[in-house]
Amino acid sequence: MRIVVVAGGVGGARFVRGVREEVQRHRPGSTVDVIVNTGDDWWLAGLRIAPDFDSMLYTLSGQNDEERGWGRVGETERVSAELHAYGVAPEWFTLGDLDLGTHIARSAWQRAGATPSDVARRLQERWPLGVTLHPATDEEVDTHVQLAGDSAGEVRELHFQEWWTRYRAALPAARFVQHGIERAVPSPGVLDALLDCDTILIAPSNPVVSIGTVLAVPGMVEALTAEAAPIVGVSPIIGGSSVRGMAEACLSAIGVQTDAAAVARHYGLRRDGGLLDGWLVGLEDATAVDALESEGFAARAVPLWMRDLDTSAALAAEALDLALALRP
Amino acid sequence: MRIVVVAGGVGGARFVRGVREEVQRHRPGSTVDVIVNTGDDWWLAGLRIAPDFDSMLYTLSGQNDEERGWGRVGETERVSAELHAYGVAPEWFTLGDLDLGTHIARSAWQRAGATPSDVARRLQERWPLGVTLHPATDEEVDTHVQLAGDSAGEVRELHFQEWWTRYRAALPAARFVQHGIERAVPSPGVLDALLDCDTILIAPSNPVVSIGTVLAVPGMVEALTAEAAPIVGVSPIIGGSSVRGMAEACLSAIGVQTDAAAVARHYGLRRDGGLLDGWLVGLEDATAVDALESEGFAARAVPLWMRDLDTSAALAAEALDLALALRP
Repeated sequence: MRIVVVAGGVGGARFVRGVREEVQRHRPGSTVDVIVNTGDDWWLAGLRIAPDFDSMLYTLSGQNDEERGWGRVGETERVSAELHAYGVAPEWFTLGDLDLGTHIARSAWQRAGATPSDVARRLQERWPLGVTLHPATDEEVDTHVQLAGDSAGEVRELHFQEWWTRYRAALPAARFVQHGIERAVPSPGVLDALLDCDTILIAPSNPVVSIGTVLAVPGMVEALTAEAAPIVGVSPIIGGSSVRGMAEACLSAIGVQTDAAAVARHYGLRRDGGLLDGWLVGLEDATAVDALESEGFAARAVPLWMRDLDTSAALAAEALDLALALRP
Repeated sequence: MRIVVVAGGVGGARFVRGVREEVQRHRPGSTVDVIVNTGDDWWLAGLRIAPDFDSMLYTLSGQNDEERGWGRVGETERVSAELHAYGVAPEWFTLGDLDLGTHIARSAWQRAGATPSDVARRLQERWPLGVTLHPATDEEVDTHVQLAGDSAGEVRELHFQEWWTRYRAALPAARFVQHGIERAVPSPGVLDALLDCDTILIAPSNPVVSIGTVLAVPGMVEALTAEAAPIVGVSPIIGGSSVRGMAEACLSAIGVQTDAAAVARHYGLRRDGGLLDGWLVGLEDATAVDALESEGFAARAVPLWMRDLDTSAALAAEALDLALALRP
């Protein structure tokens, strides 16, 4: 079985870990390719940082700090203290020493001509993950946030990372923009992975700034929906609040309710030109299933909380089961 | 008194620390400007590294590792281990974590348009040194080593750092080259410092790959000798061997004996179109003084070993005394 997952960072990594586990347990011989959000990427102190990709890399290689929930285990911040003293890195963004090794390697390779896809391959040569990670696009289309201005005509814009990490998404966002997105195309690995794949899963990542930025790459939705493979999404909203992160602030900026069914409708029904064939909601949202089904979504209520490897694998199994049931 | 010192890295830093000490003790109100060798600089893992400048910076700010003799005190190498694992930095070059902070800052500033002189200023804003360091030139003219080839016509060339650090200067060198040196000019701070200065000291640094690369900058010797300020050098050779480093390998490549008097003759007598007015040799080389004097050098035999701050300051006092005696 050839499985493709569209995912963001930390939450996406947890879901992909579950997919990998489920595949290893029950579907040997299957492949898992992951289309990773690149909208969070940015340049900091002359270094190219890819937070979602690195969260995937560290989580799937067992290098992540489980207690903290992100970054490398056993991390220190000696270099970061120097960068703060020199004033070249903001205090509000954490740069671990081990993590910096990845950023320096990525930046050196990219400056030597490697694409983000090339970099992704090299990083995975060090740590074979059992799945294959692909940046959604090789174009640099970092997400920026346009704030709701006080006075008409005034637009203040900041990089997504500053809005998200420094301001904890507390400044009301009017719009998310990816400058130059019109030039972007899906990365070569993404297109290869989608060709003749059997199922496509949408991880329970932020629908706006993680999944949304992947889908914003011109040609991405067309590539995802060109195949016969069913597309099954997992709701990142459980019982009206986001599982992790600050998805509410992102959803409200684009006028979508923080609600499992609302997110499905935002992605849209594939047969109506949208994305989804199926949609998994939490047991807490079981009452939404009937309405979704009547609208054409193949909807199921399942346990959505990924508390550990077993619950993550069980969720992946539900998603794969639904996809198999939807196969033409 | 306006003092200018031409210097390389670790040994030069020790001498400059002595000059600073002597000035603070006995010549208050004097200024010390240091022209620092940039020939050892290189790009490593996409980062701009300036070993001599940083040795100066760390030594004069009290951050250097006195026991090891170089680098930052309390240094660790966590990032370096990552870079080795990714294969982006050679195992034979040490990159400390704290030191990497400096390299990342320098690289970020340079990529944002700052010159090496601008970077030098910013680094010294963090650590006021009591002296002012200037890169010899803002041009990138890293030293390369052409090896003595086995067969005629075959020239193998490597960066100075690889020859020096990896091969410990053990591969016979045929020639030292700085590609693009013809485009280089002394940095603005160098020219400002030399204007109307009172004395110029040549530190006991490597005459070939430290002082020699500074002097190779077009216009540098002219700028040094344009002033009335006496130029007094300190021999890096004591009793026929180099005080530190592997100067013999460099001197032999350019056909100069490892000998205090030979180095003075290599620099040349200023009135004959060379560099020096005066030259300090060690007590071990006192017998060379008469010959040097008869050739026109103002030569003195003094204790050259810089064992601590006091002996370094005493040596600086000898150099300044000789310079004062030579003032027109």
